[in-house]
Amino acid sequence: MSVFDVAVWKNGQVCMLDQRLLPHQEVYLTFDSAVEVADAIRSMVVRGAPAIGCATAFGVAVEAKRLVAQGVPRSWTEAMEPGLKALRESRPTAVNLAWALERMKPLLLSVPAQSVPERLLAEAEAIRLEDIESCRTMGRLGAEILPHPEGRPLSIMTHCNAGALATAGYGTALGVIRAAKDLLKNIKVYANETRPYLQGARLTAWELLKDNIDTTLLTDGMAGHIMSQGLIDVVVVGTDRIAANGDVANKIGTYTLAVLAKRHGIPFIVAGPLSTIDLNTPDGSGIPIEERSPDEVTHCMGQRSAPEGVGVRNPAFDVTPAELVTAIVTEKGVVMGPTTEKIQKLFE
Amino acid sequence: MSVFDVAVWKNGQVCMLDQRLLPHQEVYLTFDSAVEVADAIRSMVVRGAPAIGCATAFGVAVEAKRLVAQGVPRSWTEAMEPGLKALRESRPTAVNLAWALERMKPLLLSVPAQSVPERLLAEAEAIRLEDIESCRTMGRLGAEILPHPEGRPLSIMTHCNAGALATAGYGTALGVIRAAKDLLKNIKVYANETRPYLQGARLTAWELLKDNIDTTLLTDGMAGHIMSQGLIDVVVVGTDRIAANGDVANKIGTYTLAVLAKRHGIPFIVAGPLSTIDLNTPDGSGIPIEERSPDEVTHCMGQRSAPEGVGVRNPAFDVTPAELVTAIVTEKGVVMGPTTEKIQKLFE
Repeated sequence: MSVFDVAVWKNGQVCMLDQRLLPHQEVYLTFDSAVEVADAIRSMVVRGAPAIGCATAFGVAVEAKRLVAQGVPRSWTEAMEPGLKALRESRPTAVNLAWALERMKPLLLSVPAQSVPERLLAEAEAIRLEDIESCRTMGRLGAEILPHPEGRPLSIMTHCNAGALATAGYGTALGVIRAAKDLLKNIKVYANETRPYLQGARLTAWELLKDNIDTTLLTDGMAGHIMSQGLIDVVVVGTDRIAANGDVANKIGTYTLAVLAKRHGIPFIVAGPLSTIDLNTPDGSGIPIEERSPDEVTHCMGQRSAPEGVGVRNPAFDVTPAELVTAIVTEKGVVMGPTTEKIQKLFE
Repeated sequence: MSVFDVAVWKNGQVCMLDQRLLPHQEVYLTFDSAVEVADAIRSMVVRGAPAIGCATAFGVAVEAKRLVAQGVPRSWTEAMEPGLKALRESRPTAVNLAWALERMKPLLLSVPAQSVPERLLAEAEAIRLEDIESCRTMGRLGAEILPHPEGRPLSIMTHCNAGALATAGYGTALGVIRAAKDLLKNIKVYANETRPYLQGARLTAWELLKDNIDTTLLTDGMAGHIMSQGLIDVVVVGTDRIAANGDVANKIGTYTLAVLAKRHGIPFIVAGPLSTIDLNTPDGSGIPIEERSPDEVTHCMGQRSAPEGVGVRNPAFDVTPAELVTAIVTEKGVVMGPTTEKIQKLFE
């Protein structure tokens, strides 16, 4: 499998592949403070809930390194607060961001002051390695529940990019697809381009082609037609946040796919690590949906498509109700027909 | 209402607004032969089923003018055949193209040979004027069946461009929207951008803003989310061909909207003149779906978005089964819950 440095520690800095330039250029950027990392998250140098979690953790680590260069702070909590705030507010929907901060913060108090930078870095690295491990487990568990058609390739539709580029590596939805390729050999992927940001065209197509997986690109409006032609066996997507009851926030357009899948009797599978499950949010109505810049909608690939003066909505995510979700695949197991009770059990 | 020369006769030539350059430039092109007009239809200088019908009729007229410059042909039918063939084969899905040819062709035999060019032109002009008239009637009939919410604007979703730009003027779906604006004053339109060709962003937003209609642009994947927020009262779209049983071919993405509308209990209304109804096609399975160039999908606004080597599907249309259609609005009346029997009655 191809490996990209989505969000890693390199030579004392945070290093990230600039995903805004894909698939045309592979450029790596480096960051020396939490504010810089927060800006990179907001401007989508890095995106995808688990990858945002990793970037956040490394952002905390690099902030501590930056601060300690001026001497060990009297209060790590106070000194770190502006950086943590910038990270916390960088994007609202992915819960992995808050999850990573919650995991890093206790170290600011529980560790001897001079050891804080080193311990934060070790924790960030642990988050990264655990994420890769989780993705591999999810891939294996997810591939096992996919349909196995006889005598023809398994045909999987995916949306946005829940791949190696959206995680520390391997991917959630694309992890399931990679594992399916290992298991079944013969698979075919339909990737929706995912306007406005085109993560499907730019990122998913790019990383699947690198792994020699047969990939066909669609515009988002084609999904219903392609399903109606009997060309899709299963839909597999990632997630930015799962509410306690199994409602799933994911990239805008996902809900539409779930409604279409239901009509066509196609299983709809969501892959996400436990860090994307938010037990504090009872259902999808409580998940904040980020509204991004109108320019993403009025432009395509930097070119203006719409006339000046038009109104715009640009919700970056939508919520798929649990009733439309066939299965949630986590690193702790698969939940078929998700409910609050079944999801709670994953944490026991 | 703003008026554009979508497909007209001007100074002895066919004149068309080049819709490929909208909304940035308003450029008019002229054509002197059927082959040139066919190329313009294929390359989407003009698009939209009724507009294609008009352009075809003027293409026939200009071909006769071109031929007669070399003397009155011995057989008009023979002389015209290459031009008619080019027009017939320019695009496969819109039935108005064949309909316009069928209407023009009898004149080649029934009229004194030297009068053919003049009579073809008169017939083309009649098609154009009837189309505008039909659109106005459809607008009025369609507006009457729209929901009339109390104390807030009526909110209408539309897809692609079934507007003045898709017809000889006024529009089918946008004709209904224009009439609704006259009737209700307070309306709001959500226009899906309609990838890959962006007719919603480029054309619908442009022409609705010209008429001061409150218009909000969405990417295609947002439709489900916006409906789930209770923001849409009704969906109104045009059509490229209606089968005898009421199955509706329209721009790719329409079927998805119909499935979503059904789930949310939102009426789904199709506006199209009788010339788009094809009684020779029993149901939607018999409608040919044009597959266009992969470049439209791998590029946005001329910029490449996807990596080289990716597979592509590019069906330009899809079929919405009659069961998902609340009403078909024609110039001869509204068919609620379309069936073969009800549609047949329009022609009696």
